[in-house]
Order: sequence, then C-alpha cells, then structure tokens
Amino acid sequence: MKAKSVTSHDVAKLAGVSRSTVSLVLNGSNAVSLSEETKERVREAARILGYRPNSAALMLRKGRTDTIGLVITETRSIRVDAYIPILHYAIADVLKEAGYSLLLETFERKKGVNPYTDLVFSHRIDGLMVLSPHVEDKDLHALLDSGFPVVQIGSIGHPEELSVTTCTSDSTTEAVRHIVDLGHRNIGSVPFSPSGFSATDSRLEELRQELLKSGIMLDADCIEFGDFSAESGYNATLRLMKRQPRLTAIFAGNDTIALGVIGALNSLGLSVPGDVSVVGYDDLPFSGFISPPLTTVKMNADHQGRLAADLMVKRLKGETIPQKRLVLPSQVVLRASTAKARMQASDL
Amino acid sequence: MKAKSVTSHDVAKLAGVSRSTVSLVLNGSNAVSLSEETKERVREAARILGYRPNSAALMLRKGRTDTIGLVITETRSIRVDAYIPILHYAIADVLKEAGYSLLLETFERKKGVNPYTDLVFSHRIDGLMVLSPHVEDKDLHALLDSGFPVVQIGSIGHPEELSVTTCTSDSTTEAVRHIVDLGHRNIGSVPFSPSGFSATDSRLEELRQELLKSGIMLDADCIEFGDFSAESGYNATLRLMKRQPRLTAIFAGNDTIALGVIGALNSLGLSVPGDVSVVGYDDLPFSGFISPPLTTVKMNADHQGRLAADLMVKRLKGETIPQKRLVLPSQVVLRASTAKARMQASDL
Repeated sequence: MKAKSVTSHDVAKLAGVSRSTVSLVLNGSNAVSLSEETKERVREAARILGYRPNSAALMLRKGRTDTIGLVITETRSIRVDAYIPILHYAIADVLKEAGYSLLLETFERKKGVNPYTDLVFSHRIDGLMVLSPHVEDKDLHALLDSGFPVVQIGSIGHPEELSVTTCTSDSTTEAVRHIVDLGHRNIGSVPFSPSGFSATDSRLEELRQELLKSGIMLDADCIEFGDFSAESGYNATLRLMKRQPRLTAIFAGNDTIALGVIGALNSLGLSVPGDVSVVGYDDLPFSGFISPPLTTVKMNADHQGRLAADLMVKRLKGETIPQKRLVLPSQVVLRASTAKARMQASDL
Repeated sequence: MKAKSVTSHDVAKLAGVSRSTVSLVLNGSNAVSLSEETKERVREAARILGYRPNSAALMLRKGRTDTIGLVITETRSIRVDAYIPILHYAIADVLKEAGYSLLLETFERKKGVNPYTDLVFSHRIDGLMVLSPHVEDKDLHALLDSGFPVVQIGSIGHPEELSVTTCTSDSTTEAVRHIVDLGHRNIGSVPFSPSGFSATDSRLEELRQELLKSGIMLDADCIEFGDFSAESGYNATLRLMKRQPRLTAIFAGNDTIALGVIGALNSLGLSVPGDVSVVGYDDLPFSGFISPPLTTVKMNADHQGRLAADLMVKRLKGETIPQKRLVLPSQVVLRASTAKARMQASDL
C-alpha cells in the first residue's frame, strides 16, 4: 500500500494548508469551522497521494473508540425473523447520528467461557447493546456488575440495567377479548421459539392467564412451538391442526411465524379467517399488506431501537438518565385475519 | 471508569502470570498456545480489577484495524427488504470467522461530497463492502482507482473491481417460458424499486426481451414500479390492475414485493393463481411457506454474501484471487403461485 510512505505533511503541502488543518479535516473534527472548499481540497490531496490518517493514533489520543457493539443472542433467528433487522438498523441510525459506529457481534455460547469478556476486551467498543438477553445470563449480570456501559432490548432484572422493553399484557388482554367476543372457544398457539426464551414464555403465560379469565384452558395439546422462521410456523401448524382439528383461532408468536401459520392453514384447505382466525405480534412492515392483512399486537421495533440507542448515547456522554428501564406500550391492530368463529357440528 | 488506574501489571500479579501472558490472552492472540485455565484466570483477574487493554495501542502495533465497513446504498430499503439482512448477516458471519468485525455504514448522498472519502478516512476500516452499487457512482469508481480494498455485491464495470453478482437472464428465460406455456398473454410487472436501480432495470429489460421472443409486448402500461416495501408492491398492484384488469400474470421484482402483490390481488377479490399468477425473485426463507407458496427466481443471498466476504478476506490477506468477478447462477423454483391462465371472455 502507498499509505506507509505518505505523511500528513505531504497532504498539507499539496493542499496548501497546515498539517493541523489536514488532521482536522481527515479526522472529521468540528472543533474549528472550515470551509467546504478547504475540506474538499484536503480530501482531494489525500486521495491523490493515497494517504490515510492513522485512526488508531486518533483513538489513542481521544481515549475512546466511538464504536458500539450490538450482540444478537439468538444467531439462528437473525436470518429469518424480520423484527431483528428493523431494530438493528434503527439502532445504527441513531448511533450514526450521534457519531458512533455499530459493530455487529454474534457469538455461540461455549461452556465455561464468558462471551462478553472477549467482546469487551478484545474488541474496540465503548459500549454494548444486547438484543433479547436471557434473564438467567450470569455473564451478562457480571458485565453489568463491572460497570461497563450496556443497554438491553429486554430486561434481565439487574438493578443497574438500562433497558427498553415492550409491555404486551394489556394488548394480550384486548386481543383475547376480541377473539373470545368473536365466539372462539377452541384456541391454539404457535409461539415464535421453543420455550425458555423470555418473550415466548411471557407471551404464552399472558395468553394462558387471559384465556382462563374467559374460562378457556390453553392446554399443552393446543400449543406447538415454532423456531423463529415462517417455515417453523408452517410445520408447527400442520402438527397442531392434525392433533386439534377443531381449533378456530391461533395466536402466532410473531408476524413472521404468522406467515407460516396462514400458509399451512391454506395448504390444509382452511381459509383465514373463514375457518381459522390468526393473530400475530410485531406489526412488521408487510403485515398490513399480506393476504389476509394480519390482526396483530404492534410492538414498534423501530421506536424500541431508537430509544435504546438514545439510552446508550446518554450513558456514554454521562448525561442524566431519568428512567433506567423504559417500558413501551403495545397496541392491538385489528385487520382481516380475525373474524367470527365458524359454527362447528358439535356446537349445534 | 476504573480502567485508567489499573495496568496489565496489576492483572498479571493477580492472575499469577507474566505481563506478556496477560497481553496475549486479552488481545485474543493465538501466537502461543495457552491453557483455557490460564486464559480464564487472566480474564477473571481483569474482570475483578476492571481492566481493559488499550485496543487502539494494539491496532497501532498491528498496523491494521481488523474491521470491515459495509455500505448499504439504499437506506430506505434496509428496513423493508428481507434480502438485505440475509446478505448482511452472511457477510458478518464469514468475516467474524476470519477475525474481522463488520461496521454498518449508511449514508445519505450530499451534493459535492464523496461519501466514501469520509468512510475510508474518518473510520477505522481495512476494507469496504458495497451492497447494490450504482453503475454511475463516480465516487466509488474513484475509490477503486485509489486501490483501497473494496468488494461489491453487484457490478459497476470497473476493470479492477472485486464483485459478486447473480445472473438472472437464464432464469428469466425459463420463468417466462413457464408462464407463456401456461397460456398467459396479458402479463404485467411490478419492479421492486423505481427505475434507475441497476437490478430493477436489468430484470425489467430481460423480461421485456424474453416476452418479445414469444411475441408479447411488455408495454409501459403494464408496469407499475414498487419502492422496496411490500406496501409499495400492494399499492402498485392496485394501480396496475385498475388500468389493466385483464392481466393474468404479474412478475414481481422480488419476493417482498410479491407479498404485497398477492395481498392486493386478494383484496380485489382475485385469487392467486386462479385468476392471476405471480412470480417473484429471491426465494426468501418465507417464500415457500406463504399462501400460496411462491414461484420465484432463487438468488441465494446467503451464498452471495459468503462469497463476497471470502473475496474481501483473500484480498486483505494478499492471497491470489483467480476470478475477480464472480457470477452466480440463479434458478427457477416452481411453486403454487403460478397456474394455467384463466379463460377470458374475449379469448373465447
């Protein structure tokens, strides 16, 4: 590479400016106001000479990296669950605006190894954002104990955590009432992941409690777990309907899963909502435009990501954070995938 | 932060090892084989003391950043087009395996400002990956001229470019034959973006040429452009069918758009494929599990991303690259969204 033999002195000479001006322009400093012409002249000179300022030296001087890590804990979910990139890009957007870059971090858990230690020690980050943390993640608790800046999307109940979560209990109450009011009594569920994942367990428990209030039992027989993808929702629904052909309503764990639930029902010759009503969670960008448009509990991934990134920026700048745990409301969006329960022979 | 007062000497003392062992462990070096026990003891000591090694100093010593930037040029597409996160995460996966981190870079074009200059000069990256570059992007051509390591998903025709593209012409031929063989003559298209975007223009041109071989004109009247989201595909289809109610087949620009095309057709009381057949491009993870399962031109985003990341790793390691431009084949996946054209009154 040419870079090694060219110095900022050469760039300054060619651009006809001082070395410190070169440094200011190429390091993107706003300390001094420089004209666009000067900036462009310096950049052009640097380009011609093939000069790259040493960002590592700059980082040493500044004592910080201006880079944030984003940990996505469920690596198998990131290719198939449309909620995650929305969160991811919203976070990246806000951080960029505040002058930070975002490093994507994924890891596979290995026994006896604390994955966060590696991320924090061997990478160049000022803070870490963790998506869907596990409540029982001891290593994350230890990282929070250490005082390293962490913001979570999801709570693990640590006294010092900064977190953004969405409350779904009120919406689940409303969605269940909607379904019960439509006359549904045989109700099933296809959670978006296997049990053990906090959002899956809490949504399922809320659903169970709420149905119980209407005297409806959500038996284990009426639940088939998905595994993040639409495909897993499709296959879970085939299994579920084989075992429980009398179901007239299915709560899908999220909208990605709901795509597969609807696909499977139609493949069985069942119409949605004519034969079976379907409810999702998320309200993804496509959810109002598929067939049928999906009734769902709107989570607002974009807003969630932006608020979480704001928390991180405030934390790194040492600003006051009035509320460490932000809990966002969700809302039920009624669309065409839910309708009156069909009459069944045994109900007549 | 505690970090300032604690040195690697303190960590070495507590862990009962030498300073260089501390350095090797915390910098993730594999130069010397150390036992997992030693590594964990060092990490634990560092954790207890709140010590963080100075990665900027490490970068200065190594003379590289081990970080790659990923530019996504169409920022409005990243939240709504499911193809992009698949590419993104495949790239991240391969780079991580090779010891590189991935920085997400988005930018808005401003007049007179070369966006790449800022990325390359003010950020800490060894190379840049560019997703869906524009053929006429002068700044990208200049960056390639400078010799900075760049790998593109998509070609801009620069003699030195490293790129991965997918060839769709053979598949378009096959897909058009499939549709024409099913008896369709009134055929429309909903491209995934406005005109001017290279993949959109090339797919449309291939489609036009191929239809022409069967004596079918793809008039401007039979095209309504989408704008990346399922919603835009939905709205474009409503406009298209209002103007051209006799269409019996629609080529959607991608599978995300196809979701909206199917949603809109059903909302008009038209069944897919009973009344209108729909073909997509991509074969996203959900495409085989929606209703109806989608006939599509499979692009394999994951494979494309992995090959592009491999090119970058080879380039940075100075390895020989036998083929600078990789062109991947696509393939038609026939599913239930295409069927025989319905008879029309005027055809009888």
